[in-house]
Amino acid sequence: MSTIFELGEKQSLSLALAGLKPVEAAIIGSGDDAAVMFSDDGNYLVSTDTMIEGNDFKFEFSTAFDLGWKAIATNYADIAAMGGVPTGSVVALCVPAKTEIEWLKQFVDGLQQAADHFAPGSGIVGGDLATGDHAFISVTVFGNLSGNSAVVRSGAKIGDGVYVGGTLGHAACGLELLNHPDQQFAKSYNQFVDIQLRPNPPIALGMQANLAGATAMMDISDGLSSDATRLAQASDLSIDVDSSKLIGYEAVLEQAAQSISADARPWVLHGGEDHSLLATFSEGTEVPRGFKKIGICKKADSALTMDGKPIEPKGWDSVKVD
Amino acid sequence: MSTIFELGEKQSLSLALAGLKPVEAAIIGSGDDAAVMFSDDGNYLVSTDTMIEGNDFKFEFSTAFDLGWKAIATNYADIAAMGGVPTGSVVALCVPAKTEIEWLKQFVDGLQQAADHFAPGSGIVGGDLATGDHAFISVTVFGNLSGNSAVVRSGAKIGDGVYVGGTLGHAACGLELLNHPDQQFAKSYNQFVDIQLRPNPPIALGMQANLAGATAMMDISDGLSSDATRLAQASDLSIDVDSSKLIGYEAVLEQAAQSISADARPWVLHGGEDHSLLATFSEGTEVPRGFKKIGICKKADSALTMDGKPIEPKGWDSVKVD
Repeated sequence: MSTIFELGEKQSLSLALAGLKPVEAAIIGSGDDAAVMFSDDGNYLVSTDTMIEGNDFKFEFSTAFDLGWKAIATNYADIAAMGGVPTGSVVALCVPAKTEIEWLKQFVDGLQQAADHFAPGSGIVGGDLATGDHAFISVTVFGNLSGNSAVVRSGAKIGDGVYVGGTLGHAACGLELLNHPDQQFAKSYNQFVDIQLRPNPPIALGMQANLAGATAMMDISDGLSSDATRLAQASDLSIDVDSSKLIGYEAVLEQAAQSISADARPWVLHGGEDHSLLATFSEGTEVPRGFKKIGICKKADSALTMDGKPIEPKGWDSVKVD
Repeated sequence: MSTIFELGEKQSLSLALAGLKPVEAAIIGSGDDAAVMFSDDGNYLVSTDTMIEGNDFKFEFSTAFDLGWKAIATNYADIAAMGGVPTGSVVALCVPAKTEIEWLKQFVDGLQQAADHFAPGSGIVGGDLATGDHAFISVTVFGNLSGNSAVVRSGAKIGDGVYVGGTLGHAACGLELLNHPDQQFAKSYNQFVDIQLRPNPPIALGMQANLAGATAMMDISDGLSSDATRLAQASDLSIDVDSSKLIGYEAVLEQAAQSISADARPWVLHGGEDHSLLATFSEGTEVPRGFKKIGICKKADSALTMDGKPIEPKGWDSVKVD
């Protein structure tokens, strides 16, 4: 099997892109200087996110397929968080020159399968391939709103219920299992490792929340405490988390936590990378199934409280790692 | 002055983004999970391009402003090459953690000033900041077609004239001057160094060519010989370059070439990074001023000929560097 170096960028790219399906919203797909995309209502959502080797992933933990999947899942979560439906992405990839074309094909397979899984008909409309000693994956994703307004972070009102759609703490638990010296635990609780490597955010819930009238929404990429703080600050209010509502989230992680003498609560409260949705709905809203109420929007001095007491946001900053 | 490491990603990013102007086509700009962009006819152009330290730029040659400018110029050229008008971009940046916020501000200034210069009202609608030892800049750019079809590479017909809009070989000359042991020459011919560091592609010509009825178009990023070969292959014909039409392009580079005992012809024929436009127009078309005829589309065995004799494309492959 050949490497990227042997084949060169152009040929490697065309071989890899051959594995991709046509994209419904693309009038002209990859192959020209730019793709032409179609928006169903004249507006389109745009978001970008980069994963860097070492900071965001390690080749020893993630396969090529995992990385392709994760790149799409995390970016699609940003479109869902605005209340939209993902339509397509462009992907810039930098890997070492010695990388085999087979690796590239599996990466592209991960991209495509994630696109199929999270938003059927969506896919990849362009890419850029380069080689370097330090790998990275930079994805820009597009989405449609189908005539609806976007759901922003700043729309929450005092009295609104605070809801989570999706899991909390699974990816953080998975990462701690992967980093544990005894890899037996990672095998025993592989469902959490799987979420770290191949996140499964509730993409379809984003548009459902929009249609149901979510007042504010964002995806939980850095952790509930940091992201709830951001939503509260953007909406100029305070979020009070009801600790009793977190017990269910902790319960599913309890056994895995005990196995490595860890505590499930910080994973649920501060762990990122599940890319679940944090949304607010006003009282009386028929909130879509899949969302669970965890708190309420109040007026308070601190942006984030739990059972009325201020708590410090802790989470992920890609520059300042705790 | 603080570094990115001291301030963290979120604060660094918000300081840097404060220097940006609102974007006309953005209904919601940066700050949420995604931006919302407006397309004037329901379609939008999308392209992505990455610059990697070492491969595509060096900190010893390029200032922060240069890099911001170049990132926008090269990406806008892809939108122009499809016959569109750039509306906005998202920018993923990775730089060492010790980078000063001042550097980041100048980078953003370069982005904004290039956006203002090439497509007034356009700008930056989102970004991602990370730190790592190896720097890169990954830009995804968007554009509007205003009801027109995109101009693709595959539309050229036998008999069409082949035209270039913009300069040829200036960036290649500039790079050779920068790499020359005696930096006096780079100072003497700084107009070519400037094009290497801050390209000035004819962005507005793209839509003009579209409206005039260009049959095919692309931007010359890798060099005339490689890119003309690609356009010919996509259109399933041959491009014959009239060598006498290249003399004017060579003449302006002649003095600089002689000063360092180099040859201007290879710069003009094979040099990339001016990001000029290569377009074909059928006979009788009123071709926009700014385009010069350099050849004709023919039927021949070789995709590229000069004065009827086959020539080998030579140019830039980001993986296989000659």
